[in-house]
Amino acid sequence: MKNTFGNSVAVTLFGESHGDAIGVVIDGLAGGIKIDYDFISSRLELRKAYGKISTGRHEADEFQIISGVFNGYTTGTPLTLIIENTNTKSGDYKNDLLRPSHADYTAKIKYNGFEDFRGGGHFSGRITAPLVAAGAILTSALNKKGIKIGTHILSCLDIKDREFNDINSDIDYLNNEKFAVLDKDVSEKIIKEIEKARENGDSIGGILQTAVTGLPAGVGEPWFDSVESVIAHGIFSIPAVKGIEFGKGFEFAKMYGSQANDPFEIKNDKIVTSTNNNGGINGGITNSMPVIFNTVIKPTPSIFKRQNTVNFDKMENAVLEIKGRHDPAIFHRARVVVDSVCAIALYDLMTQKYGTDFIIGD
Amino acid sequence: MKNTFGNSVAVTLFGESHGDAIGVVIDGLAGGIKIDYDFISSRLELRKAYGKISTGRHEADEFQIISGVFNGYTTGTPLTLIIENTNTKSGDYKNDLLRPSHADYTAKIKYNGFEDFRGGGHFSGRITAPLVAAGAILTSALNKKGIKIGTHILSCLDIKDREFNDINSDIDYLNNEKFAVLDKDVSEKIIKEIEKARENGDSIGGILQTAVTGLPAGVGEPWFDSVESVIAHGIFSIPAVKGIEFGKGFEFAKMYGSQANDPFEIKNDKIVTSTNNNGGINGGITNSMPVIFNTVIKPTPSIFKRQNTVNFDKMENAVLEIKGRHDPAIFHRARVVVDSVCAIALYDLMTQKYGTDFIIGD
Amino acid sequence: MKNTFGNSVAVTLFGESHGDAIGVVIDGLAGGIKIDYDFISSRLELRKAYGKISTGRHEADEFQIISGVFNGYTTGTPLTLIIENTNTKSGDYKNDLLRPSHADYTAKIKYNGFEDFRGGGHFSGRITAPLVAAGAILTSALNKKGIKIGTHILSCLDIKDREFNDINSDIDYLNNEKFAVLDKDVSEKIIKEIEKARENGDSIGGILQTAVTGLPAGVGEPWFDSVESVIAHGIFSIPAVKGIEFGKGFEFAKMYGSQANDPFEIKNDKIVTSTNNNGGINGGITNSMPVIFNTVIKPTPSIFKRQNTVNFDKMENAVLEIKGRHDPAIFHRARVVVDSVCAIALYDLMTQKYGTDFIIGD
Amino acid sequence: MKNTFGNSVAVTLFGESHGDAIGVVIDGLAGGIKIDYDFISSRLELRKAYGKISTGRHEADEFQIISGVFNGYTTGTPLTLIIENTNTKSGDYKNDLLRPSHADYTAKIKYNGFEDFRGGGHFSGRITAPLVAAGAILTSALNKKGIKIGTHILSCLDIKDREFNDINSDIDYLNNEKFAVLDKDVSEKIIKEIEKARENGDSIGGILQTAVTGLPAGVGEPWFDSVESVIAHGIFSIPAVKGIEFGKGFEFAKMYGSQANDPFEIKNDKIVTSTNNNGGINGGITNSMPVIFNTVIKPTPSIFKRQNTVNFDKMENAVLEIKGRHDPAIFHRARVVVDSVCAIALYDLMTQKYGTDFIIGD
Repeated sequence: MKNTFGNSVAVTLFGESHGDAIGVVIDGLAGGIKIDYDFISSRLELRKAYGKISTGRHEADEFQIISGVFNGYTTGTPLTLIIENTNTKSGDYKNDLLRPSHADYTAKIKYNGFEDFRGGGHFSGRITAPLVAAGAILTSALNKKGIKIGTHILSCLDIKDREFNDINSDIDYLNNEKFAVLDKDVSEKIIKEIEKARENGDSIGGILQTAVTGLPAGVGEPWFDSVESVIAHGIFSIPAVKGIEFGKGFEFAKMYGSQANDPFEIKNDKIVTSTNNNGGINGGITNSMPVIFNTVIKPTPSIFKRQNTVNFDKMENAVLEIKGRHDPAIFHRARVVVDSVCAIALYDLMTQKYGTDFIIGD
Repeated sequence: MKNTFGNSVAVTLFGESHGDAIGVVIDGLAGGIKIDYDFISSRLELRKAYGKISTGRHEADEFQIISGVFNGYTTGTPLTLIIENTNTKSGDYKNDLLRPSHADYTAKIKYNGFEDFRGGGHFSGRITAPLVAAGAILTSALNKKGIKIGTHILSCLDIKDREFNDINSDIDYLNNEKFAVLDKDVSEKIIKEIEKARENGDSIGGILQTAVTGLPAGVGEPWFDSVESVIAHGIFSIPAVKGIEFGKGFEFAKMYGSQANDPFEIKNDKIVTSTNNNGGINGGITNSMPVIFNTVIKPTPSIFKRQNTVNFDKMENAVLEIKGRHDPAIFHRARVVVDSVCAIALYDLMTQKYGTDFIIGD
Repeated sequence: MKNTFGNSVAVTLFGESHGDAIGVVIDGLAGGIKIDYDFISSRLELRKAYGKISTGRHEADEFQIISGVFNGYTTGTPLTLIIENTNTKSGDYKNDLLRPSHADYTAKIKYNGFEDFRGGGHFSGRITAPLVAAGAILTSALNKKGIKIGTHILSCLDIKDREFNDINSDIDYLNNEKFAVLDKDVSEKIIKEIEKARENGDSIGGILQTAVTGLPAGVGEPWFDSVESVIAHGIFSIPAVKGIEFGKGFEFAKMYGSQANDPFEIKNDKIVTSTNNNGGINGGITNSMPVIFNTVIKPTPSIFKRQNTVNFDKMENAVLEIKGRHDPAIFHRARVVVDSVCAIALYDLMTQKYGTDFIIGD
Repeated sequence: MKNTFGNSVAVTLFGESHGDAIGVVIDGLAGGIKIDYDFISSRLELRKAYGKISTGRHEADEFQIISGVFNGYTTGTPLTLIIENTNTKSGDYKNDLLRPSHADYTAKIKYNGFEDFRGGGHFSGRITAPLVAAGAILTSALNKKGIKIGTHILSCLDIKDREFNDINSDIDYLNNEKFAVLDKDVSEKIIKEIEKARENGDSIGGILQTAVTGLPAGVGEPWFDSVESVIAHGIFSIPAVKGIEFGKGFEFAKMYGSQANDPFEIKNDKIVTSTNNNGGINGGITNSMPVIFNTVIKPTPSIFKRQNTVNFDKMENAVLEIKGRHDPAIFHRARVVVDSVCAIALYDLMTQKYGTDFIIGD
C-alpha cells in the first residue's frame, strides 16, 4: 500500500496542500481508546508555523474526526480525521519552472503530468498535519502504558544542543516547549541562525534527536520488520529527511567492538545495559533501554535566491525566483512529526505482538 | 509480513545458522527471467569469509533452486532457493551468558525462550547468504535494463576511500573486487586495521557507500513508500546496520539551502541536475540521477576480550569470554548484502509502476 | 489491513451510519484517469432506496471528492470521497436488545462495548454508498478498456429471471435499469413479492448474477490471489452476502467431468471455449471468456415481526419489536454494490500485472 | 503478496508438481508451539491418493521441517517445511494440446510461455500437500484452545450425507475416517459412484461441509476481512473449488427474514442463538456458534474420454486423449485441504485480535 503505513494498525494519508481538505484514516485500533482532543490540538500547535522563523502561511489546523469515534472513545472502526484547507493562495504557484530539490520534476514524470502542483500538492509538508494528529492519538494511548516519546534539535550548522540526560524529565520538558532545545542558550543561537537565513533569502537544516522510554523488551522483528526498519520507513516519508541513525549511528565506524558493545547488568532485579550505544535495539528488537535515534532534516528547498533550473514545458534552461510564503527552516516544526511517526511505528509493532486490545480504557 | 520484504515482488527469508538449511522465497517474478547461476555464485563468493580478515567458519554456500525455475528461466511462480548448512559446530555455543550487543537477550524475551540460539539462529549474518542469492537474481535482471548497483567501503576508523567519480566504471570495478575499495592504498590500510583488530581480539566497523545508475525518473512514492523508505527498511534488516543517509545525508545539517539544492539543467536533451546532493531522489521519487546512499556497519559484537554481562538463567552478573569462530569486521562482506537489498527494493518499486513483466527475456 | 481491500490499488472504507460522514480512500491510481461525476451519481442512484420496496430513509448521497482529483483527472495520489450523513434519526435506535442476525452482539464483543450502534454503525449497508462511488470510478476506467460489468437478479423465492444471453447487450440493458431483471414479467413478480414481504413486516432475499466481458486472458494468480479468491473476498464484505459461486458453481456437484469441462476451440483466430461452465476462470486465472458469478443475498434481518432475543445489559431473554425505517429486501439495491466490488477486485489484479498506468487518459 | 495467505500469520506456498520439492513457509508464529509430527503425517495421510478411487501416483509425502523448529517447538521464526517429489513421470506430459478446464492455457498467457507445465506445475493439486502440513501445525495448536475443525462430503451427484448433528463428536468421527462421510451407507454409495466414473474414463465432483466449534465471539472484521471473506479467499485457492456458502447459503434466497433470522437466547449463562442459519457469523464476526460452510469441488478436469481442444503451438483445433495417472474425483481428498485452509484463516484472524502469543506451550 503506497500511502499507508503500518500493518496491524495502519495509517493512510490523503490530501493536497491547496485541495479541499487533508486527512488521515487510522485502521486497526481497538474499541475503547479515549480521544484527548486537547492533546491533539496541542500537538498540532507544536507543528504550526509561527513568528519570523516560519512561513507566513498560517492555518487554523482545526481538525474534525468524522468517523471511528463515539462518545469520546474509539469505536474500533476506521478513525478518519480531516483538516480543511482555508488559507490557500494558489495564485502564488506556477509549475513550468522546476523548483530545485523539490518534487516538481519527479511528480510530473510519476503522475503523467496530472499532479496537483499547487503548493507542492500531496508532497507538501502540510500533509504532515494529519500525520501529527494521528500520532497524537496513538501517543496519548502509549503514554497510558508508560511509554514516552520526545525529540529535540540536536544540532544546526555548528551549534549543538546537549545530549539527553535524565531522559524522562527531558522528554517532559521538550513536550511543553514550542522550540525543542534542551539548553536555553543553544535555543537562542539556533533561532538567530534561522532568522539570519531568512533575511538572506536562504534556508538551513538540522539534526533531530528522539528518545522513547518505557518500551518493553521483545518488540520488533529480525527480518524485515526490525524496529529500525519500521521507524526508518516512516521517518523517510517525512519531507526533507535524508538520514537516520540509531544509537551511536555513524560514529560506530570509528569505534572498536570493545567500546561499542553495551554490557548487560542486573539493576533493580532487571536486566539492563550499562551503556546504550545501540539505542535500545539489539537484533532489531527492543531491549527495554530507551530507543534513541537521530534524523537529519535538510535545508528547506524553497529559497528566495535566484536558482538555475529548467522550464519543463519549453524544455530549456531557465532562472527561477521563488515567491510566496516559505519556511527558512523546518526542523523545529518537524520534531513533532518525527515523534508522531515514531509513535505510529511502535504502536503497530506492539499491536502485532500483543493484539489489538493491548491499550484500552482510561 | 514479518520475514517478508516487498509488495509486488516479495522476498521471504528463512533458516537458522545451525539448522538444516537456510533459504529464500521470491514471489511475484514474471515468467521468463533468465537465471544466471554463475552470477549468483559469484555474488555469494563476494559475501564469503576468507583469509585472516574473516571468521574461520567457511561454508560452501552451494545453493539449490528447488522451485520456480524451469529450463533456466523463471516460471513466474515462487522461486525457492536453499543453501544447506554443512559446517556447523554447535558445541561452540551456550546461551546462558548473554552476549552484549547481540540478540541473545531480545530473542529470549520475544520468542518466550524457544529461540534457536545456536550460532545466532535466525539472527545470524549467515541468513544474508540467501538474501544475496535473491539479490543476485534481481540484479542480473536489472542489469539487462541498464541499471547498475555497486558498493564500496567509504571509511573505517579514520581511513577514507575516495568518493565515486566515474560512477559506471567505478561500479564495474567494484563488482570484480573481493575487497571493495576504490583506492588501492586505502584498501591495504583498511585490511591492516582489520587484521590488527583481530590480533587484539577486538573488532571494527565501517561505512559503505552505494551507487545505482540507470534508473528511470518517476519510481517511488511520496508517502510512505519513498525510495528512501523502502531501501532503508530493507537495509536496516541487515545485522549490524545502525544508520543510513541518502546523498549528502547528515552533512545537510551544516549546509544552506542555496548550497544544498541541486539545480536542474538540460544536458543531451535530458533533464538532469548539476549536482547530486539529494542522491537521485526528490520527494521520495527517483529523478534519473544516480541514487547514492551510505550505510554504517557497527563493529562485530563478537569479540574475544572479556566482557561484563548477565547469566540469564541464574539472573546474576557474570563475565563472558567468547570463543568460536568470528569476524573481526563484517563491513567488507556486508557490501554485497547492501547491493542485494537495494536491488530487491528497486525491483519491487519498479514492478509496482511498470507491472510484473517489465523485465523478461534474454 | 482490515478495512482496506486491494494490493496495488487499495480501497479503504470508513464511516458510521449516523456519524458525520462516510467515505472511501482509493490509493494506487495512476495520474490521469478522467473522473465522470455524472456516472458516479448515476451509480449511487442505482443503489438508492426508492418506492415501497425500500427503506423510508432517503439520503441525498451527494458526494464530494476532497483529495486526489485536479482539473477533473486523478492526480495519482489518494482519492478521498466523502458523503455526509444528513437524514439520521438516532432516536430510533437503542442497543440493549440484540437484533437477531445483525451484528449487534458480535460488535459489542469485538469492540469492547464501544461500538457506534446507531443505525448499525460501521456495519450498516449505508457504508456501501462510498463503495459504489469507488467502484464507479474504477468501472468507468475499465469501460474505456472495453471491460463491461453488469448484474441482474437471477432469482428470488421461486421466481427466476432468464440467464444472460447476448451478454454485452444484456449488461448495457441492466446498467440502465433501476430494477435489474432481464425479463420484464419476472421483474414485476419480484417487485410484488418484495411489497408483499413489506406488508407482512417480513423480508426476502435473492440471488444476483454478475457478468464481466472484455477481460484479457492471464489475469489472476493460482495461489492465493485467484480471481475467485479476490472477488469472493470483496463480495463477502457486502452485508447480507452468504454465498458465492463461479460458473456452474454448486451445480458442478451433479455433473460429470465430460459435461463440466469447457472444450477449447479457435474462433476468429482467437482461443475461446465452446461452453463457459467455469465462468471464465481456469486455475484462478482469466481465460478471456466472460467471468460469471452468482451471489446470494439473505433476507434483510430487520423485520417488524416480534422476535425472541436477549437483553444484553440485563443478560435476560427478551422480545424485540423493531421500529424505524428498513428495507424489506436489499438484493435489488445490492446489485450495484456487487458490480462495484467486482470492478475494484479486477482493477487491482490488472494493475498488479500491467502496472499502475495501464489505464490513463481519455 | 500473491502466493502468500494471511496477515499476522502468513503462509507462502511454493513448488511444482514435477520439480525438486514442494513446500511452505509459515511466518508469524509464536515461539513455543509444540510440533506434533505424527499429527502432520496423519493429516497428509488423509489427503493421499489411495485405492481405486484415486490417481495411481502415490507419493510418500515425507516432509522435512528445515527451519523454525528447535527441540520440537516453534522458534518463532519462519517455519519451512518441504516435501520432495519422488514419484514423477514427466514423460506423461506434453503441453501443445490445451487440457480443457485445466490451467494450461491461462498459465501460458500469464507466464509468457515459461510455465513449468509438467504435471500441472504450480497449479497441481499436489501443492496442497504442504498446505495440509501447514494446516496441521495450526490445527493442533487450535485444538489446544478447544477449537475443532472437521469436514464431510455433504453430497455427490444425487447422494446426500446427513447434516452435522452432535457437531463435536461428528468432527471427532470424521477426523479419524479416511473417507469422510457421516452416514456409512452413503459412504459406500459415493465410493461406488467414484469407481463407476473411473471405469467410464470420467470424473465427478461433490460438495463438502465444514464445521468449526469452540471459536470465541468477536473474531473477524466487518470490512474487508469478514470471517467469510478470509475463509473464502483461502478456499477459492484450492484447485477445483467453484463455490462456497456459509450457513444456509444459497437457500437464503428462498427464505423469509422471519425464518432466516437466528434468535438470541441465554443458555447456561451464555448468549447463543436458537438456530444457526448464519453459520456462526454475524456482520462478518464470529458469534461463538459453530462456523458452518459448504464448498463445491468440481469434477476433476482430467478425464480419459476424447475431448475437443486446441493445439496451442499450431493454433489449430485438435482432439485430446489424456493419458497418465489421474483422480476420478478429488473431493474426498480435498476435505482435509479445506480443513487446513480454514485453520490457517482462523489462526490468522485470532492472532490479529489476541496477539502473536495467544497459543503457546503444551
